Amino acid sequence: MARASFITLEGGEGVGKSTQLAALAEALRRRGHEVVTTREPGGSEGAEAIRRLLLEGSEERWGAQAEALLFAAARTSHVDSLIRPALARGQWVLCDRFLDSSLAYQGGAGGLGIEAVRELNMFGIADCLPDRTLLLVHPSGAERARHRDGDGADRIGGRSASYHQAVDEAFHALAEAEPNRIRPVDASGSREEVTARLLDALEDLL
Amino acid sequence: MARASFITLEGGEGVGKSTQLAALAEALRRRGHEVVTTREPGGSEGAEAIRRLLLEGSEERWGAQAEALLFAAARTSHVDSLIRPALARGQWVLCDRFLDSSLAYQGGAGGLGIEAVRELNMFGIADCLPDRTLLLVHPSGAERARHRDGDGADRIGGRSASYHQAVDEAFHALAEAEPNRIRPVDASGSREEVTARLLDALEDLL
Repeated sequence: MARASFITLEGGEGVGKSTQLAALAEALRRRGHEVVTTREPGGSEGAEAIRRLLLEGSEERWGAQAEALLFAAARTSHVDSLIRPALARGQWVLCDRFLDSSLAYQGGAGGLGIEAVRELNMFGIADCLPDRTLLLVHPSGAERARHRDGDGADRIGGRSASYHQAVDEAFHALAEAEPNRIRPVDASGSREEVTARLLDALEDLL
Repeated sequence: MARASFITLEGGEGVGKSTQLAALAEALRRRGHEVVTTREPGGSEGAEAIRRLLLEGSEERWGAQAEALLFAAARTSHVDSLIRPALARGQWVLCDRFLDSSLAYQGGAGGLGIEAVRELNMFGIADCLPDRTLLLVHPSGAERARHRDGDGADRIGGRSASYHQAVDEAFHALAEAEPNRIRPVDASGSREEVTARLLDALEDLL
């Protein structure tokens, strides 16, 4: 049997990551693998405590840079306490959002810069990068965003659509830069069809 | 009157930073400056919340890297909420420990690397660097550390002395690399003598 792999699922809101994470874990278990599922932000006691810090208090409590440092600290705790030990025990780790979400949301759409946010995170997680990142892409998502922009929606609606479009574009750029690690997967169709595509994108690791 | 300056006090344990911070603030106020005093870790509501995270829980809760990210996040909050606004109002800011403590303790003595720890912090605080850093140096401190090492002290005592010696050496190297910003000041003698030396080291900013 091949060694255990660290797999992350990424993508915009509502693209079906949690459902597919559970289905993929089930499929891997049927093939005889031990699988641990987890999610960010959170995933360890320390990371959950940081998550509460990020969610509590006023909007202005944290600036963008402080928030990015807190996300990187939470991810470091998650890697130290859960991900690295599970991989060392030979368990597959499936994680709902990881590094690439910080790169796309805070680095890309949030304007902090993808490379700057990557450096913070690499300081914390060192060599614990995913063996494969499955990027769920729903074609209608981008369509909808463009439509709302062109529609003359109110400022909030318009900003929100362009923000999410910036997230999608950042994910797309990340996938182009690391084609071996990050695989875009069509998220349209039935749940079973999508799970089958995800398994195809892991074939070389199985 | 010259513009308000951001001054930090640094140095090892027990060298008299808090006492001198208060005395220096009083001396600056007598010269007609508005002065805000603060200290790290902490100094803002968000930073204090992070400080509690760092102090609560078990020894193993945070690894060295997660801890360094949390310190950088706390410092960023401190700069955003207190230091930058005070300077913008024309108030002098005197801070007990700041960036150089992270560089000397976590980067130097803790082995994470001074440049790596500096990068995390520069991401958060950007251009908000001290105009002057007063490094209090007690000659007997280094003497005592060397004596304990040579004495065949128990392992903890020996490690502790060599750790504190590594901190002193890191502070010294930082001062040599940035002689205009960081000024070593002899901390021996009476309280008044030391305060007078600190004021001398600020003369060009007054």
